[in-house]
Amino acid sequence: MERKDIELQYTWDLSSIYQNDQVFNNDVNKAKDLLNKCISYKGILSSSSSNYLAYLETQTTLSRLLNKLYCYAHLASDVEPDNQAHQQKLSEALTLFQQVSNELTFVDLEIIEHQEQIREYIKDPRLKNYVYTTNEVLRYIPHTLTKEMEELLSETNKISDVSSNVFSALRLEFDPVMVDGKEEFLNQGTLSIFLKNKDASVRKQAYENFFSKYKAFENVYANTLSGVMKKDAFYAKARKYQDSLEASLFHDDAPRKLFEKILEMANLKYRPLFHRYNALKKKVLKLDTMYNYDLSVPLVEENERKFEIEEAFSIILEAVTPLGQEYQAIIKKSKEERWIDFYPHVKKRSGAYSSGAYDTKPFILMNFVGDYSSLSTMIHELGHSCHSYLSNHNQPAETADYRIFVAEVASTVNEMLLMQYMMKNAKSKQEKASLLYELLEECVGLIFRQPMFADYEHKLHQAVENDQPLSSQNITELYNQLNQAYFGDDVVLHELAGVSCYYIPHFYYNYYVYKYTLGMCTSLAIANRIEKGDQEQVDNYLAFLKSGGSDSPIELLKKAGVDPTKDELYIDAFNYFESILNQFEEIITTI
Amino acid sequence: MERKDIELQYTWDLSSIYQNDQVFNNDVNKAKDLLNKCISYKGILSSSSSNYLAYLETQTTLSRLLNKLYCYAHLASDVEPDNQAHQQKLSEALTLFQQVSNELTFVDLEIIEHQEQIREYIKDPRLKNYVYTTNEVLRYIPHTLTKEMEELLSETNKISDVSSNVFSALRLEFDPVMVDGKEEFLNQGTLSIFLKNKDASVRKQAYENFFSKYKAFENVYANTLSGVMKKDAFYAKARKYQDSLEASLFHDDAPRKLFEKILEMANLKYRPLFHRYNALKKKVLKLDTMYNYDLSVPLVEENERKFEIEEAFSIILEAVTPLGQEYQAIIKKSKEERWIDFYPHVKKRSGAYSSGAYDTKPFILMNFVGDYSSLSTMIHELGHSCHSYLSNHNQPAETADYRIFVAEVASTVNEMLLMQYMMKNAKSKQEKASLLYELLEECVGLIFRQPMFADYEHKLHQAVENDQPLSSQNITELYNQLNQAYFGDDVVLHELAGVSCYYIPHFYYNYYVYKYTLGMCTSLAIANRIEKGDQEQVDNYLAFLKSGGSDSPIELLKKAGVDPTKDELYIDAFNYFESILNQFEEIITTI
Repeated sequence: MERKDIELQYTWDLSSIYQNDQVFNNDVNKAKDLLNKCISYKGILSSSSSNYLAYLETQTTLSRLLNKLYCYAHLASDVEPDNQAHQQKLSEALTLFQQVSNELTFVDLEIIEHQEQIREYIKDPRLKNYVYTTNEVLRYIPHTLTKEMEELLSETNKISDVSSNVFSALRLEFDPVMVDGKEEFLNQGTLSIFLKNKDASVRKQAYENFFSKYKAFENVYANTLSGVMKKDAFYAKARKYQDSLEASLFHDDAPRKLFEKILEMANLKYRPLFHRYNALKKKVLKLDTMYNYDLSVPLVEENERKFEIEEAFSIILEAVTPLGQEYQAIIKKSKEERWIDFYPHVKKRSGAYSSGAYDTKPFILMNFVGDYSSLSTMIHELGHSCHSYLSNHNQPAETADYRIFVAEVASTVNEMLLMQYMMKNAKSKQEKASLLYELLEECVGLIFRQPMFADYEHKLHQAVENDQPLSSQNITELYNQLNQAYFGDDVVLHELAGVSCYYIPHFYYNYYVYKYTLGMCTSLAIANRIEKGDQEQVDNYLAFLKSGGSDSPIELLKKAGVDPTKDELYIDAFNYFESILNQFEEIITTI
Repeated sequence: MERKDIELQYTWDLSSIYQNDQVFNNDVNKAKDLLNKCISYKGILSSSSSNYLAYLETQTTLSRLLNKLYCYAHLASDVEPDNQAHQQKLSEALTLFQQVSNELTFVDLEIIEHQEQIREYIKDPRLKNYVYTTNEVLRYIPHTLTKEMEELLSETNKISDVSSNVFSALRLEFDPVMVDGKEEFLNQGTLSIFLKNKDASVRKQAYENFFSKYKAFENVYANTLSGVMKKDAFYAKARKYQDSLEASLFHDDAPRKLFEKILEMANLKYRPLFHRYNALKKKVLKLDTMYNYDLSVPLVEENERKFEIEEAFSIILEAVTPLGQEYQAIIKKSKEERWIDFYPHVKKRSGAYSSGAYDTKPFILMNFVGDYSSLSTMIHELGHSCHSYLSNHNQPAETADYRIFVAEVASTVNEMLLMQYMMKNAKSKQEKASLLYELLEECVGLIFRQPMFADYEHKLHQAVENDQPLSSQNITELYNQLNQAYFGDDVVLHELAGVSCYYIPHFYYNYYVYKYTLGMCTSLAIANRIEKGDQEQVDNYLAFLKSGGSDSPIELLKKAGVDPTKDELYIDAFNYFESILNQFEEIITTI
């Protein structure tokens, strides 16, 4: 399908951002002027509270404008990538971003240098919107070095990215998989499809063809994986953090016990629930020996129900009923105001996202094909967009932007509400089983597998921090050992399981994976409470959505009634998982 | 053959180092005591000239002992790698080296901190042996940073070696080459054999099977090659060198104009001689189109003459006649005192080397198989050993050790003398042609190809120093362009020639390759003058061999009558090459 063949009402309306090129170009010029005005404060921004305020106001205006320009250009480019005018705009916006980032490095340094005056200034009520963001800068003082040390450290950026770059550049080619006598193409994209095949020999072959290539290059991967761990340790030590974990947590203003609590609950206390699920799989699949590459074989037939967009919308509206009319009104608005670009077409970017700026609608790119997955993706992205809408309408620009840390809560709670609604309205046991199975699989990935990953990367980080050598043998043996405990007694590990650690890009992101677990646990707990009719939870959750980025993620979650450093959240989350598993087991053993 | 089946006289006599384990172990304990004594000078080594002297004497004794221990252990292990007692000794010696290196880092720092006193102390005649080595430390003052900057810089060592590590770890596998209907194994070792094949299609196939794999991984290699260039630039900038070139030259105490002179003469002025040789190749090989992968096809039949060890020795003794009786006497001694381990046998390390310590003989490991190459290798290694012998007998321990920079002169001059002798005594035109051809090919590699490599790595270094992005496209286009000019009009470049830069490990050594050119040009010039009966050159050369490491390499070469920053050296060297080429052309066109 071509874009021009799609009904206008199913495309997004970017004219609400810029009506024409003239207006876009005017804003580009305005942004350049604002940047120069910002630069003119160099050396004087801390000389009085009025100067500081004036500078910050200029910077906010600039930043709002830039985000608006970028939003327009990237949305337009994503649906019409061949349009040179869009590409030109995108490139202009990115260049401006780069210039701003290069030219305004002096700001944080000046704030830190004149911290005493600055701390006084932010007591001034005129500066109240800037208190949180200023404190965010001041928080880094203990980890800021002398000027010449900072310069040297900044030079190291040029040499510290080799591990990640090589990891991305190393593209393996795999031998094809024979299915019914025909060669089929194997790569990172198709592996998961082969692993769902009902024929065990196809799964085994795909697994072996895939990971034997990782085995062949294990010494390269051992170098890049230990290389990135050493990089994290280097920067942590240079900036006087206790270790890489503390450095990572510091950026999110999160306490160490958050990480520890997640490992304690998800990785240790509740892991038996995962083992119970594996035992059930083995029984349902009737396997004498169940290997780790057998776990993706579907336990139920796929949900084949199809949805038109109008139907999808009314389901979504019904599903979010517990969140109240204000929330439903935003969903309605998303359709009326054409925030969403629904259908896939030639050249359009794949996948789905929610994206916008403080001065635009929170747009959504979809590739809606009408299956349950499309429906679920749509309510997921609407979760992000509603979050942005509520934040932008309740926060000043300075504190509207929320972090990835909390973003996934808003989207996954919606997925849960959809699932609850669909369960209540399911037309058959099959449909119910399929809904429950999808949720169970999603949960396994996020609340069991990611904590094991987190534990593993923590152990790798600790090894390099203690100057222990990391050979491919150490790296893969450790992974093997953790996997053995993770999968439990009903799963036999293939001998290549050890090298499968080399396949995971997330280990290159310095303690990222545990955030997935946090997001999902939080959503499960909230959805569980909402389902039980807990109105206080609904109110807290809406308040949380309206808080945007006005506080640290942990404080925001506490306000939402889900303190991730306490047991309660995890108890509710895993109890909900257990109830899903119970329901699933009952249905699957009776259909 | 097993080691036990070899006549004792053809094995080296390591009992001249240590008669038994007891003596070795006593020295290990002595070394540990000496290390503790060295450490006890921490904080006081610069407090008086007597202290400084006492410290240096202790350190020299320690260092002599360590080198002796290591020498014994590594020689013994190289011929009997399965002997656990040898391995144990080797591991002890290496551990001691590591401890010394870790424990004595304070020494240079204290010398630099108390530079004024130290400069006074070395005026004391008792310290005369330590003047050069002390000045070598003081020379680094402008490039030494504050304590905390040095600590940070030292931490970067943990993250700066990823490029080199990945380069070493990335082992490619190649499709086999079909020769006469049979699959033959292709790898880094066999490529050069296929490229000598008379069948053009075999050469093409080997070249394509080989470099297409480099092409497949070009993005990885682009990252590691640009990564190592960035690493060099980082350390050069951090240590206040003008650029990576200056940093590299500084370590060898060599001036920038040395590098520039080599490029000017070898890479520009005399390159037409290489083009003349290529034109001759095209004519002799009767190729309509000559590709770069055709250049290794031999122009003459291989020299099949065989040599027994006794005969080889008498040829070598005759060949070095121009160097006089003192030099010949050392050669004789090498045999009488059993410095050399001649024959290959099961498990023995491959290749050849000269290796010894101040308090041992300069031993030689050979894998002598009786062909001309074995003979040439033997005189080459004897060149190193005679150099060591003369240096050790004429220099105090502190300045006996010479650098790689000058080491190759001593070995290649010997190769030239052998070639001259063999030419005079050749029994046929064929034999002469073969001797000349081997020399021409060696020269091409060292005096034409390496300067092109040097020019290329210099351009890569400059690119990263100017923050220009290095994609695989930039990197290979530049290489292609330089190769086109290098090979000249008679050679057509294969489209994969651009990626062949990724095959060269030397680009990971920060300006190393130009040293090969320097060594070979120096040897050619010296051999040329010696052949012409220049007795002053002989005397200067012997004086140079006796100077060991008592001055900067450039000063040592000047003393040898070959100033590598002046034109004369190169004029003599390339004239010699031209005369070899003239002789070869005359013979090859008349046999």
